[in-house]
Parts: sequence; C-alpha cells; structure tokens
Amino acid sequence: MTQDVISGGQSIHAPDNLKTLLQTILQQALTVNDGKVADYIPALAEVKSDYCALTVATLDGQVTSVGDATATFSIQSISKIFGLMLAMERMSDSLWERVQMEPSGQPFNSIVQLEWERGIPRNPMINAGAILVSDVLVSHYSASKSAVLSMVRGLCNRDTVCVDSRVHESEKDHGARNAALAYLMKSFGNIESDVEEVLDHYFWQCALTMSTEDLARSFAFLANRGKCPRSGNQITSHRDAQRINALLSTSGMYDQSGQFAFTVGLPAKSGVGGGIVAIVPDYGVIAAWSPPLNSFGNSARGMAMIRNLANQLGLSVY
Amino acid sequence: MTQDVISGGQSIHAPDNLKTLLQTILQQALTVNDGKVADYIPALAEVKSDYCALTVATLDGQVTSVGDATATFSIQSISKIFGLMLAMERMSDSLWERVQMEPSGQPFNSIVQLEWERGIPRNPMINAGAILVSDVLVSHYSASKSAVLSMVRGLCNRDTVCVDSRVHESEKDHGARNAALAYLMKSFGNIESDVEEVLDHYFWQCALTMSTEDLARSFAFLANRGKCPRSGNQITSHRDAQRINALLSTSGMYDQSGQFAFTVGLPAKSGVGGGIVAIVPDYGVIAAWSPPLNSFGNSARGMAMIRNLANQLGLSVY
Amino acid sequence: MTQDVISGGQSIHAPDNLKTLLQTILQQALTVNDGKVADYIPALAEVKSDYCALTVATLDGQVTSVGDATATFSIQSISKIFGLMLAMERMSDSLWERVQMEPSGQPFNSIVQLEWERGIPRNPMINAGAILVSDVLVSHYSASKSAVLSMVRGLCNRDTVCVDSRVHESEKDHGARNAALAYLMKSFGNIESDVEEVLDHYFWQCALTMSTEDLARSFAFLANRGKCPRSGNQITSHRDAQRINALLSTSGMYDQSGQFAFTVGLPAKSGVGGGIVAIVPDYGVIAAWSPPLNSFGNSARGMAMIRNLANQLGLSVY
Amino acid sequence: MTQDVISGGQSIHAPDNLKTLLQTILQQALTVNDGKVADYIPALAEVKSDYCALTVATLDGQVTSVGDATATFSIQSISKIFGLMLAMERMSDSLWERVQMEPSGQPFNSIVQLEWERGIPRNPMINAGAILVSDVLVSHYSASKSAVLSMVRGLCNRDTVCVDSRVHESEKDHGARNAALAYLMKSFGNIESDVEEVLDHYFWQCALTMSTEDLARSFAFLANRGKCPRSGNQITSHRDAQRINALLSTSGMYDQSGQFAFTVGLPAKSGVGGGIVAIVPDYGVIAAWSPPLNSFGNSARGMAMIRNLANQLGLSVY
Repeated sequence: MTQDVISGGQSIHAPDNLKTLLQTILQQALTVNDGKVADYIPALAEVKSDYCALTVATLDGQVTSVGDATATFSIQSISKIFGLMLAMERMSDSLWERVQMEPSGQPFNSIVQLEWERGIPRNPMINAGAILVSDVLVSHYSASKSAVLSMVRGLCNRDTVCVDSRVHESEKDHGARNAALAYLMKSFGNIESDVEEVLDHYFWQCALTMSTEDLARSFAFLANRGKCPRSGNQITSHRDAQRINALLSTSGMYDQSGQFAFTVGLPAKSGVGGGIVAIVPDYGVIAAWSPPLNSFGNSARGMAMIRNLANQLGLSVY
Repeated sequence: MTQDVISGGQSIHAPDNLKTLLQTILQQALTVNDGKVADYIPALAEVKSDYCALTVATLDGQVTSVGDATATFSIQSISKIFGLMLAMERMSDSLWERVQMEPSGQPFNSIVQLEWERGIPRNPMINAGAILVSDVLVSHYSASKSAVLSMVRGLCNRDTVCVDSRVHESEKDHGARNAALAYLMKSFGNIESDVEEVLDHYFWQCALTMSTEDLARSFAFLANRGKCPRSGNQITSHRDAQRINALLSTSGMYDQSGQFAFTVGLPAKSGVGGGIVAIVPDYGVIAAWSPPLNSFGNSARGMAMIRNLANQLGLSVY
Repeated sequence: MTQDVISGGQSIHAPDNLKTLLQTILQQALTVNDGKVADYIPALAEVKSDYCALTVATLDGQVTSVGDATATFSIQSISKIFGLMLAMERMSDSLWERVQMEPSGQPFNSIVQLEWERGIPRNPMINAGAILVSDVLVSHYSASKSAVLSMVRGLCNRDTVCVDSRVHESEKDHGARNAALAYLMKSFGNIESDVEEVLDHYFWQCALTMSTEDLARSFAFLANRGKCPRSGNQITSHRDAQRINALLSTSGMYDQSGQFAFTVGLPAKSGVGGGIVAIVPDYGVIAAWSPPLNSFGNSARGMAMIRNLANQLGLSVY
Repeated sequence: MTQDVISGGQSIHAPDNLKTLLQTILQQALTVNDGKVADYIPALAEVKSDYCALTVATLDGQVTSVGDATATFSIQSISKIFGLMLAMERMSDSLWERVQMEPSGQPFNSIVQLEWERGIPRNPMINAGAILVSDVLVSHYSASKSAVLSMVRGLCNRDTVCVDSRVHESEKDHGARNAALAYLMKSFGNIESDVEEVLDHYFWQCALTMSTEDLARSFAFLANRGKCPRSGNQITSHRDAQRINALLSTSGMYDQSGQFAFTVGLPAKSGVGGGIVAIVPDYGVIAAWSPPLNSFGNSARGMAMIRNLANQLGLSVY
C-alpha cells in the first residue's frame, strides 16, 4: 500500500515501507559490477569494492537506510558543497567575480578550460572552482578547517566527524594536477593566499569521512528551503538553497551532469570515494555509497540506486 | 489581493491581477537598453529594437499578455525544441548515440568542441546538435518541413504559422559556419543525408515566425506532464517532457544556462530573434520577446522580465 | 672513389657512382614494412604498396634514379608548392595577410587551430592554407587549373602531365573535412570565391600525377636560387626560393616537420600518395616515392631513403 | 671594396669594413620605437630601453661589435640552449622520449598544448621543454648550476659570467605559470625531481647575465660543426650541432619562428631580456641586444638588425 504526497509539484508515490523499496533497489545495484574503485591514491584504492549503502532522509525527520549506511568513507568532492556554503556566506555576490556558475563541458580537472577562461573557474563544483573556494576560506577565515568542521558536525549532528589524515597526506603527495590548477589561477591573479596553504585546505576537506546517514542529514536544509529540519536553524536563505541546488543540477555530477538531469532530474553531487547525494526539494535527501566508479568518476551503483528510486517515486524536479 | 497555489512543490504567490504584475515588469524591462539586435543577417537586423512582449499561459487555459504579444518574430533557436520532439519520437533512445545530452561549456556555434567529440554534438540545443537533429528529420520523414509545420500549428492552435522566406534565404546566404559544423559532422560519419538538404531544413525551421502567445500555448504540454492542456492530447510521455525540460535546464540558454538556472531556476530556451520561453512544471509557460540581445545571444529584456516574474512568484524548480 | 663538392657550406661526399649508392639505399628501404597505404579514398587505397623510387637531380642537369622512378603517382600535398608559387606571384606580400607563415603544431587538417586563428591558416602547407591559396588562384586566374598545369608541365618538361580524374572525383566525394575547413574560413570572411569551386580546384591539383623524375626536375629551381637549371628561366626570385624553402623547412612534413629538420635538415614536402621531395640548396633535389605512410602521413620508406642519403652525403643545411 | 667568401653554399658579400656596416644597421635600428621592455618582473622592467648592441663573431676568430656590446643583460630563454646541450650530452637519444622536437604553434608558455600532449613538451625551446630539461639536469648532475656555469664560462672565455640574483629571486616570485607547467608535467609523471628544485634551476639559468660579445663567442661552435673556433675543443658532435641548429630554426623565436625563417633564414634564439643570437653555419654568429620586445616577446630592434645584416650579406641557409 502506498500513499500520495505532494512534492516537487508532483504527487510522489510514497510506499508504506520505504525500507523495503530501498532494500530491493540495493539488491539490484549489487548486481552492477562494471565500475572501478578510485586508485589514484593508495588510501582510496584499498577500500573494499562491495560496500553499498542507501539512505533517504525526509523532511519529517525520518531517516531510512539500507546497507552500510553508518560506515564512513571519504566524501571527496561532496565536500565542495560545504566549502561553497561558507564562501557564499562570507563573500556574497562578489564570490561570482572569481568563479563562474556555468557548466564546464569538460572533465572535472580540466586545465585547458581554466586557461581559456583566464584563471576564472567555470563553476565551484569542478576542482579549480573548489580550489578557488578554498582560497576564499583560507583568506577570510582565521581557521578555515575548524570553520568547515564545525559546520559539518552541526549539520549532521555528529561531533565525531573527522578527516582521514592518511587520505589527506596521500592527496597532497599525488596532488600535482591540482597544484597545476592552483598555480595557473595564481598566475592570473585569482589566488590570494599561499598556494600550498590553499591546497592543504582543499585536500583536507576532501578527506572528510562521513556515512550516507551523515550526508543525508547534512544536506536536508537544501531540500527544506534553507532550514535544517532537525534543528530548525536557517542554514542558508531559501534563495541560496535554490542557487546551490541549481549549481548541483547543472554541474554536480562531473561530465555526466546532463545525463543525470535527463535520467534522474535531481540536484546531486558525487565524490570519487563513491558517495552521491541527491536533493529532492520539499521532500528530502537521498544519499548513496558504493566505491566502484564509472568512467566519469561517479559511483556506478550509486547512480543506479538513485535513478531507480527517483524514477519509482517520480522525484524529478522537471 | 493574492491567493496561494501549489506548484513546483512551493506555494506560488499568484496575484489577483497577473496582468498588472506583467505590465509593471514590462515597464521595468523597457528601461533596459544595453542589448543589441542580431545583425548577422539583414532580415533580423531590421527588426525594431523596441518591441517587447510578455505572456503567461497557465495550465487552466488562461493566457495573460502584455506588450506586443501577438506580433510574430523569428523564433530561431526556440525551434530546436520542435525538431527535437519529432526526432525523439522517431528515433527513441538511439537518437542519443548520435548526440549527447551534456552541457557544452562553449559558445553555441563552437566547432572546437565538435572536433574533440569526434562529430558527436554535446546536446541538441547547440547548433551542431540541432543540425544533427535536422539530419534525422530529413532522413526519416518524407517531408520534414511539413511534419514540423503541422506539429507547430497544432500545438499553438493557429493554422497560419509560417516561415519568413526572406529570413530563410538570408540564413542560407550567411550560413558558412553552420555549413562548417555540418561538414565536420559528415566527415565523422554522423550526417546521413545530403548536407545542403539538412542545412536547408535547419535554416527553414529557424525562420518560423510566431508570437509570444503562440509560443506560450505551444509549450504548455511541457509544463503539463506531456499533455496539451487545451486539446487534452498527450504530446509526449511525462518522462519525455521531463527529459526535454532537463535539457533546457542545463543547455537551453546558450553559454548563460548555468546563470539562468542560478538566478531563475526554470527550464528555458532562447533564440537570437529575441524570444525566450520558460517552463514552470505544473504551472504553465512564460514567453518573452524583445529583440536586443546580450553578449550571450539572449534577449536582455526577456531575461530581465522572466527573472523578475519567476522571483516574484517563487517559480524556481529548485 | 669519391670527390668533394662544396654545397650548403659543407663539402658533400659525392660518390663516383651515385646510382650504386641510391640502389643500396633503396634496397634497405624495401625492408621497412611498417607503413600503411592511404585508404581514405578507394583510388589511393588500390595503389600497390611495393612501389619504391628514388631520384636525385643535381644542378648540373644530371638525373639519377633507381626503382619505379618513371611511374606516376598522385602527388597530393606536394601540389601545395605549385599553388603557392602562383599565389605568391599574383598576390605578392598581401598574400600573407590571409595566411600565416608559422608552423602549426597540429595535424594537417586541424579545424581547432583555424578557429583559434579566426580563419587565418597557420601556413600554406596545411590543408586550410592550401585551400586558401586555391581561393586566391580561383579568384585571380581566369583558368586556375590551366595556369597550374601549364606551369607544372613547363617545370618538369613533360607535356603529358595530367590529373587522375578518378582521384579528383573521389577526393570530392570524401572531402567533408576539407569542406568544413573552407566553410569555416568563409565564415570568417577569408574565402572570396564560391566554396565549391575553390574545393574543386584544391582536389584537382591534389590529383596531379607525376613521377619522382618529374618532381625532381620540377623543383630544381628551388635549389638553384630560383632559376631552372635546364631552361635557365628564373622561375622565382632568389629571395622567394629561399622563402619557399623556409616554409618547407618549418612546415613541409606535416606534424613531423621538426623531426625531419632534426634528423635530415632539408626543406621538404610530402604527400599522402607516398611522395616526398627534399631541396638541397646549391646541390639539387631528392625525390622519393613509396605508398605506405607512417602515422604522420609521410611515406615511411621515403623518409628512410632521404634520411640515409642526406646523412651519408652530409646534406643538412644546418 | 668587398670580397666574396663561401658560406652556406652561397658567396657571402663580406664588406671590407664590417664594423661600418654594423654601425649603419644599428643606427637604423635605433629609429625603431615600437617595442615594450619586459615588465613581468621589476628587475627586467627597470632596464633602460635605449640599450642597443650588435656583434658578429666569425669563425676566423674576429669579433666585430657596435653599441653596448660589452654591457651584460639577462639572457633569459637564450639559456635554454645551454641547458639543452648538457641534457643531450647526459641523456643522449633517451632525452627525446621526454620532450619532442616539433614546433609548438602556440605561445611559449602554453599549458593547453602540454595537456594535449600528456605532459610531453613539444620542444626544448618553449618553457615547458626547458623546465623538463632543468629536471634532467637537476636529476643527473650533483650540482646542476655549477655544471651550467662552468660550461658557459668556458664557452665565452670569461670567468666572471654570473647570475643576477635579484632577477633570479624575482622570477621565482612571479613564476606561478611556470610552476603550473611543472606541476602539470609532474602529474603526467614526466618530472623526476622536486618541482621547487627544478624551477629554481630553471629560473637561475634564465638569470644568467652576458653581453652580445659573450653570446657570439659562446655559440661559435654551432656555426663551426660543433668545434669551438677559439679553443679548438669539440663542444658537441657535428651532428648534434646541426640538430641544435635545426631546433632553433623551427622553434627558436617563439611563435614568430616561421616568420624569422621566412624573412631571415637562420637558426636563432631570443630571450625576453632583449637578446637574440643567430647562427650562420660555416660563417659565424650574430648576437644582438635591445630590451624593447615586440608582441611575440622578441627584441624589436634585434630582429630588425639581424634581418638587415642577413639580407645584406645573403646569409640565409635556405
């Protein structure tokens, strides 16, 4: 038995037993075996490929999970949302003079495009954009890491969220391309602080470890017009929540963002640790995790799980 | 006095007198004077720059207009939606082997990207993609122009919709770059029919002339889960309507699509004739027209009018 | 026994029996089997891969050949020199406002670079540059093909030089990429005549058929300060002969020009028919032919033969 | 009165009084006022724009100079030849697996091309290539700076040649783009040593200060088949001298190399300090200096002086 709820302007087919639906979807996803765990640093390459988790947090406060939903993993690029939130708060509209808001049409680590755009990244969801955001944080916060950590712990209501220092160090050791992006932006005058310090912040925030339950709780405010449904705190304005969702819709899934909009229709962000979060305005957040990545750097099973769930519940914002 | 309606998951602040609101927005837009009428062909360059129109068609069948809303103009790239609809119907999923669904991150007439992508356009909303779609129509319909015209006339319920033959001829005379795109795709084996015939269809559909009222009526099905609210005909499946809206959201406004999503938050398509249509799922369609274009090729006043209306009514899908 | 002659500022180790040396070099070249006959048009793909010819024409009028040196083949891009000669004569310095003289650093048919350079080809030895030159000829000669044919027949002293009409037609049928280059130049206003006519001239001159003896005789003036050693006619000024040699040195061997300068050190031009001509200032011309091409589009055996001969005789201009 | 000498395969019109000719050419050059002194670092921007020097060192040991020919200046990219000489000596042919020998067709500091070529620079005369060469020196010499300095002092026979430490430090402070190039190569695995150390060597060698007389003497071996005409030492093999000259011919004058070959016809290398050296095989070396640069980064007066001298003496190798 199901009941209809109104969300995204559409009646969502909400099952009596969401958990059963999630379980079915997770089982189907486990048959997907065509991805490859990120191996550019040893600390990520060692992660077991059979982890799989799916969590839905709805705005009424319910959190429904299946699989390894409390196991923590490296959130990697999902952290770009956290950095962006703080930078938007601190810089307001002037932020957008230093980073654009356009889809890139290029791989996430493209240096070619950064050169064409004279050191102005296309958006804050590609690496160059997130490094630019890290420069803003390092330049405008006395303790940029603490600022991020404090915000994240508050959002997911878990004070033990921390960074995997081995991943952090490993990223720095293998971060030559990101260093190239940062130095190129500096050569165009678009990095204010010391490049090494900026990169250190960037790699640090990529190394945050969270579970799908942590992520689903953290981003509930984006589905709730900027207000955290648990605490009632207005995290961002409704307008800024919509803006962040817009950025995620056009640029959140690397160079597969268009396909994700076409087949799923939700604002979302992925990370090479295998995590994906998808925002369903006025309904809730879906968080998925499974380490093997497709050729675009998105979790193969995570994509499949969110697509199935969104299609079955009719969640597309379009 | 206003009343609240539910749309896009959000209560839309629907004014008693929508016409008064539109009138105010149109007056404000007329103070915007920083665009430039398209001048790459004489037939477009001659259009008076002070035309301005704004129409809202809601799903209950009401059409509210201010300004030159029954004057017809060259719809140009807005016609890409019509072409795409027929190609999706004829080709189904195999269409997406010949054109991608990713934002381009490049100007609409980029030949560089088409070369990188080995003749596979990034999406059907850039010129290369629409030329590819024209090849599909020319190759799969015995009379591709008639097929488009018949569909368009039916959608907007006006049997006198036609093509401006002077614009059509003028486009052909100045179409060297589009010819370059077509021949490059042919060199990669991605054009089946004769290039001249394909370009003729493409230039022909760009030269369709319609009013904002015509456009608002035509695309109402995209806001109505694929069904035409006037005739009750299911024009496309709900799924395909969502897919088209997704493409418009990531790629409909040329290289300003990300900014439009960020500031407006609606699927939309513009043309260099100065027209813009924006889809509000489960609410209706906004159509705007004013010839002067900003540097991205989008109507400067049209952008301003739709942004103001969307923000005041809270229409963002995000 | 050998004698020393002075050429290129260096004593050239000229063997008593040049023919014997050429024979040895040709035999060694026949053991090279790693190329692939051009197959983009059937008429070229059918050419037997075991043809091999080597000719040296010295300024004293001697022509020494081994192998299939009187068999004719499609000279393809070698014809770019003939076109350039006529265009330089007709346009003088103003030619260089429409085509640059810089190495391209890109494949010979790059459309990306042409876009960056706003329709101005990097040099007359890449396809775009030669198409531009063809536009000059079509626009400035009442009968551009006759002008080329007459000049070529005079240079090689053979009135039966002609075009392989099957190759000519076949090039046109498979010329989509060159059409893309031409239309892109036209879109930038850098093509004056009708694109179809320009391409027809270009494909026609590529289809000229000549033997290595024809080629060696034809280009002797480039080694002789502009004067044809046979007729005594001043074909170009000394300055223009040096300029053409300079272009061949930086841009004559496709994207292997730098390597050819490094390993051989002579101005040279190749064609995908398998022919190569190399100019030795104040000494003579080397012409080689063998159809199988390396990955850069240069004759694999032709490269080997010219390199061996140049190294053994000490012919580098550097 | 003049006498004819044989060089480059051509009789060179050697004036009785070379000094008078040089004086005339220098006076003409001083009327050229359209360049701009390099200003990317303060230490270069401060150099007086009216310095001008011209030196010819012939293989008989004569050194003829006019203007500020003993004043020292920052040789900048001319140092790339010194680095390359040591790297060729140490690495032999394996060097060319890590750097190509093709003209770049791009600005000297292009990062776009380096990305396309997967971290393999197009040639050792662009910045990326010279940084790669610096990595070779840092990795293969226990004291790479000493090795360079010792070689340079020996070549020009002046033990006081040194580095301008203010320029060296200043380059490091403004070296973000070069750092981007180095880190990008490292990300492709093509830098072995520590990036900071590699860049330090690179910036150090760019800061070498020499006079036109120093430079003319230093590179005489390149005109003399590898042998220093003063000491009689074989600096490189004849083959390697020709190879270096070939690289200078196709890639020595930044993105004006093709034009320099076309109008002058000599292997040459320029630096943003305003120096240029040109090699005349079997004749000698021309060195020119004047700080104001044209838009390509080449000394405007230096180009004019070398072109005039080469044309008047008929020095083109082609």
